[in-house]
This record gives sequence, structure tokens and C-alpha cells, in this order.
Amino acid sequence: MEYTKFFSNVADWVKPNPIRRLSTLINRPGIISFAGGVPSPETFPSEKIAEIAQRLIQERGAEVLQYGVTRGNRQLIEYIVEQMQTRGVKTSPEEIILTSGSQQGLDLLARLLAEPGDIVLAELPSYIGGTYALNNVGGTLTGLSMSEDGLDLDAITEKVLKMRDLGCQVKLIYTIPNFQNPSGITMSLEKRKSLLALASELDLLILEDDPYGELYFDTPPPPPIKSLDTEGRVIYLGSFSKVLTPGLRTAWVVAPSEIVAKVELIKESADLCSSMLDQAIVAECARQNLVQSRLAKLREFYKIRCQAMLSALEKFAPSGTNWTKPTGGLFVWVELASQIDTTDMLSQAVEQGVAYIPGAPFYVSDAKVNTLRLAFSKETPERITIGIEKLCKMF
Amino acid sequence: MEYTKFFSNVADWVKPNPIRRLSTLINRPGIISFAGGVPSPETFPSEKIAEIAQRLIQERGAEVLQYGVTRGNRQLIEYIVEQMQTRGVKTSPEEIILTSGSQQGLDLLARLLAEPGDIVLAELPSYIGGTYALNNVGGTLTGLSMSEDGLDLDAITEKVLKMRDLGCQVKLIYTIPNFQNPSGITMSLEKRKSLLALASELDLLILEDDPYGELYFDTPPPPPIKSLDTEGRVIYLGSFSKVLTPGLRTAWVVAPSEIVAKVELIKESADLCSSMLDQAIVAECARQNLVQSRLAKLREFYKIRCQAMLSALEKFAPSGTNWTKPTGGLFVWVELASQIDTTDMLSQAVEQGVAYIPGAPFYVSDAKVNTLRLAFSKETPERITIGIEKLCKMF
Repeated sequence: MEYTKFFSNVADWVKPNPIRRLSTLINRPGIISFAGGVPSPETFPSEKIAEIAQRLIQERGAEVLQYGVTRGNRQLIEYIVEQMQTRGVKTSPEEIILTSGSQQGLDLLARLLAEPGDIVLAELPSYIGGTYALNNVGGTLTGLSMSEDGLDLDAITEKVLKMRDLGCQVKLIYTIPNFQNPSGITMSLEKRKSLLALASELDLLILEDDPYGELYFDTPPPPPIKSLDTEGRVIYLGSFSKVLTPGLRTAWVVAPSEIVAKVELIKESADLCSSMLDQAIVAECARQNLVQSRLAKLREFYKIRCQAMLSALEKFAPSGTNWTKPTGGLFVWVELASQIDTTDMLSQAVEQGVAYIPGAPFYVSDAKVNTLRLAFSKETPERITIGIEKLCKMF
Repeated sequence: MEYTKFFSNVADWVKPNPIRRLSTLINRPGIISFAGGVPSPETFPSEKIAEIAQRLIQERGAEVLQYGVTRGNRQLIEYIVEQMQTRGVKTSPEEIILTSGSQQGLDLLARLLAEPGDIVLAELPSYIGGTYALNNVGGTLTGLSMSEDGLDLDAITEKVLKMRDLGCQVKLIYTIPNFQNPSGITMSLEKRKSLLALASELDLLILEDDPYGELYFDTPPPPPIKSLDTEGRVIYLGSFSKVLTPGLRTAWVVAPSEIVAKVELIKESADLCSSMLDQAIVAECARQNLVQSRLAKLREFYKIRCQAMLSALEKFAPSGTNWTKPTGGLFVWVELASQIDTTDMLSQAVEQGVAYIPGAPFYVSDAKVNTLRLAFSKETPERITIGIEKLCKMF
């Protein structure tokens, strides 16, 4: 039987994530992997979480194993209100909804905000899961270039006005201001302010995706764009995936209550509620101060790995190679001097025992084929040095 | 600030679930509740799950707290293949995807199969979460009446041909053949066969939602429509929510591999993966035979409650009242002799200490306002008798 005749347009819009497609190649046993952008399981407080899970199920099984409200665990929402305050964002439970990872937040917001054919602005390069969520509801992604201090703002106004002249809807900018995935770039305070002014001028909403903000090495990044937002233009996404564990799918959206109420309705028919156990475990971790108290160690953990990678690049990369110097997060972005296509280069690298992610898929347009993303989260500093040396011989 | 100008059509399509809106009213402490259609927490094997959770996190934390594949826990998928075999469905891992509850399966399938404006056929009455998922992607629901043995098939052909004549797309029938939510009705084997023949003739897909099939009281319901399907027209949804616990959001879809592959892509951008811990717990429960071995007890548990309800209705309901006699599941459906609007009657019932769900919201069209849904899952037989007596005085 032929099924395509039964499919909606969504079937044409959805694209397989090229990173996930590469997974058999990049997950070969023994390989030094700079590929997967996932937190190190060494950082998971498994013993404590095991205890918490057991006690929660034993003592509150009738609640944590039952259906629950779509909006999410109330105790955890109240903790998030406090946390957002420390990030400079004054908010309230009415403006918060919990989601099954930030990926669900991105998907629900994409469904609410992007009409098929709408233009959505995104950074070049950007997080594939974010741009795909926007693409998969029929949005058309348009890229904006970046510099060392984040998004280049000069060209935006002209671009937006031109697209609107052509009859296109442009409502949304998607940005990851802190230690961006994949580039590791952080947007300066000045640019955050200017972006907000620009959004106001052009009547745009800003989707601020911030899974890495707490993972700074020495000094915190500038405050969230959301903290500077006086008009209610910013929708903020935060997550426990990188500061606790990603397998307990728990993240949150902070947005004007009118937007959150609509997101809640979409989530209701998307999954009724997120995992009750996951939410309860994360809430209990938060209550026991297991999130905040571990941050200093976590920052040190990733700082050492990042330094190992930057030092190795300094030592082994041929001249003309450029790479970012992240001050937090999980990623370094490399641009080769030559025009080598890093997608073609990957099988050779894997042959040599090193994996990375080619840069091209991170671009919604104007892909630079000679770029690549290196995650420093998985490997030890020693293996990072060995891996970078091997890799640099191919540049 | 005014946000509606930023919203997509989805914002207009999404409707609040009236059951969830009633929740403050129907969840009053002390009330005898026939409202929430949720399994009884008394049936949750909390002690065992607590142990399993602790051990999984302690021994396999690096896996169960990490990101995982979108398709779902492989061990659990293999268990489902076996389980489907006992239900008469020959399948393979390529045809299965795990979802965060069947609600997510319904949502992902709605996104894949229903284009805005498409007509989707559904039973009168039907499960609100299912019809809303189809509605919320822009589908137009059209109702099909039911008899004691399920869907009335006579009018379908004429209806579909007429709508197609008008230029409408009709691709899908949504049905809950076993102990249907909300009616408790089970479709006969003969009708299952005829429905399948009709689907073939009219070139329709069948969405077979089966969360209650294992909860039969004495004899199993007829085999799944999927088991009779030789052409690949049936998409089957199964769930652990009612046979284990719903808070561990774990369910599955069985469909032709071409459909499952597309569902996987949509899920990838919907949430990357479901809760890794939930899936691992359910897989371990399955491995330890905690699902199958508890079924006999579970069936007995709900049978006793259902009998209490049916006896009480027999005793107290005024003549002319009609109700279904389910042979499994969680629900009895009542149609009053008078034209009392059960939505209006609800606050009075709550005043008297009894809650139910008005029937009207379960109809996608031609709502009968004098109907109501009674769940017998939550209350003890004694309280069921008291509650039904009180309720019947209002009929």
C-alpha cells in the first residue's frame, strides 16, 4: 500500500536530523567523540536521584504514578520563579509551563507562533532541534550572521522590511544567547539591548533558548534578554537537562500568561502531562538544593575540558584555522582554512578514531561546508588532546 | 501587549478540554467522584516500582538519565512485539514507536495524517483527547452513531461519498473498539470485519485506540481490528497507562513502517525522546512479568466496581433511564429519560456530594445533553452504591 496520499504537508516538511542520522558512525565503540552534544553522565548525581526516586514512589506513588496537570509540578514551578529572579527575571507561576525538555517547548511554541509560510529568523549557525521544530510546522527559516559577540544586527531591519514588502509574515527571532549550540558564542549585553530595541521597532517576538546559561566557566554571561524585556516580547526557555540530567525530560517556558495559556492547551492534546515521576524527582532535587549546589563543580568540570580542547587546538591546528573561545557551555566551533567539506572528511576522521559533527546542517542557509562542531563534554582532557591532535592532521 | 496577531491558526483551533476545566468542581475533597477516568492508584505496584527505579538509576544511571533514541527503549519495543502477537497482531520493531502516553501518539498521528480542513470520522460519543488532537491540527470531526455492538456502519459510505463530492478530504476513522471511553461499548467482531471492508472500499485508514482492551472482566473482547488487517489500513495505539500506571508516560503505536518512520521524525522535533527513566521502569516491569501477572487481579478489581455501579443503577435509576453494560474498562454511559441538561445538573450533584462528567463534550456533533459518563474506577463498591443512589434522585 502507498501511504503518501494519506499524509499531510507535515510529512513533507519534516526532515531527519542529520546528527541523529550520523549516530551509528559517530558512536563507534572506542572512538574519541566530540560529536554528541550531551552532558557527561559523570556529572549525574545518580546515587542521590536513585534514593529520591525510591522514596517518592514509595511515599507518594498515588500522585507521582498518576496523571497530573498539564501545566506541570507546582512545587517545581515555584522553584523556577525563584531561580528566574536570580537571573534577573521577575515572573510568576501564571507565566510558566513545564515541558518534556526544551525541545517540547520549542515545538509547542512553533505550533502556536509559526504559520506555514511564515519567515522565522535564526542565527547562522543554530541549534538543529530548534530550527527543525520551526521548519516542521511549515516555517521558512532565514539566517542571520553572527560575530564573536553574537548576532549581527545591522542587516536585520532591511531584511525584515524587504520580506514584509514581499508579503511575508515575519514574527519571530530564534536565538541562543549563551554559549550557543553549536558555535559556543555568547551575545554581548550591548547586543542584547539592541536586539530588544530592534524587536520592538519591527514588532517581533524573541525566542530566547537558554539551556547553557548556568554552565559558565568564570564569570556569568550577561543577563537574559528576558530580564531586559519591558514590553513582553521575549519568550524564555530554560532546562534542567544540562544542569541535572537530560533523561528526566524537564524544562520550562517563561512567557506572557496569554502565550503560556495557549501553549498549555496545545500541550494538553500533545501529551496530557509530562512524566509525573521525572517532574517530582527534579522538584525534589531542587528542594534539596541538588541543582544549585552542584553548579560550581559542574562549571569546573567543563572548564577543564574546554581548556584542554582550546590548548590542543592552539598547539595542533594549522595556521589559518579559526575557532571560537567559549566561556561556558559544551561546544567549540571550528572553521578550516581550506574549503575541505567536513561532511566528506567525517568517515576519514572516524577511521582515525575521532568523531565530530559537520557544520553544514547547523546552517538554515548559506552553509559553510568547511566548519565543524566539537563538543568537549564527553571525553577526558587527555583524550581530548589526543583526539584534537589526530583531527588537526586532517585540516 | 496584544499577542493574538502573533498566533497561528492553531491558537484558534485549540479548545480547552471541558473535563479539565471542570476539575476544581469535580475534585472537591470528600466528594464521591465518578468523574476522572483514571485508573485507581490502589492498583499501582508502587513498592515494586520504587525498587526497580532505584536499582535502574543506581546501576544504569548513565543510560536512564541520559538522552536516548526517539524510537524508544528497544527492550520494551521487543516486549510489545510479543504482546501484540498474543493479541493476534504479527508485527516487528520497525512497525513500533513508543510515545509519551497514547495522547502523544494521537497528536503525532493527527499531525501526520490530518491536513487543515480534512474530515475525520469519529464515534458519537468519543474520547475527547483523541478528537481534540485531530481538531487541534485543523481537522473537522464528523460524528458516526453507535449501537450496543459499536459503530453504525450503514450510513458511513453515503456520508463519505457525499463529503468527497463536496471536495472534502476524508482519510481517517477514529475508533476505540474495546470498552470505549466514554460509552463502555465494545465493537462486535462482525462489525470489526465490516469496518475493515468498508475502509478498504472507501480507501480509509483506521485509527484503533485501545487503552482498555486488557481490562476485560470475564471474556476477552474480539481481537483487535489490526489483527484482521491484511492491507495495512489500521494504526493501533496501545498503552501501559491503565494496566500499569499512567504517570510513567509510556504507550505505543503499531503502524506500517512507512508511517512509523514519519511519526518518528515528528516526535524527534516534538521532544527528542520520551522520559528515559519511565521507559526503563516499564521495560523492567515487563521483564519481571509485573504487567501480565497483575492483570487477573486488576480485572477482578474493576469488575467488582462495575458490578456495584450496574446493580445500583438497576436499583435506583428511574424508569426510562438507559445505561450501557460494559464488559470491561472503566466507564458506564447513562442516558436520562428526561431532557435534563447534565451540564446544568452538575453543580447540584456536586452540592449533593457526587461528581460525574456531562456527556455533551464527548460528542463532536449532535450532542445529547441528557447523557453523562460515570467512571467506576476511583470509588469503593460501598461508595459507588451511595453515590449512585444520590445521583439517581436527580435524574
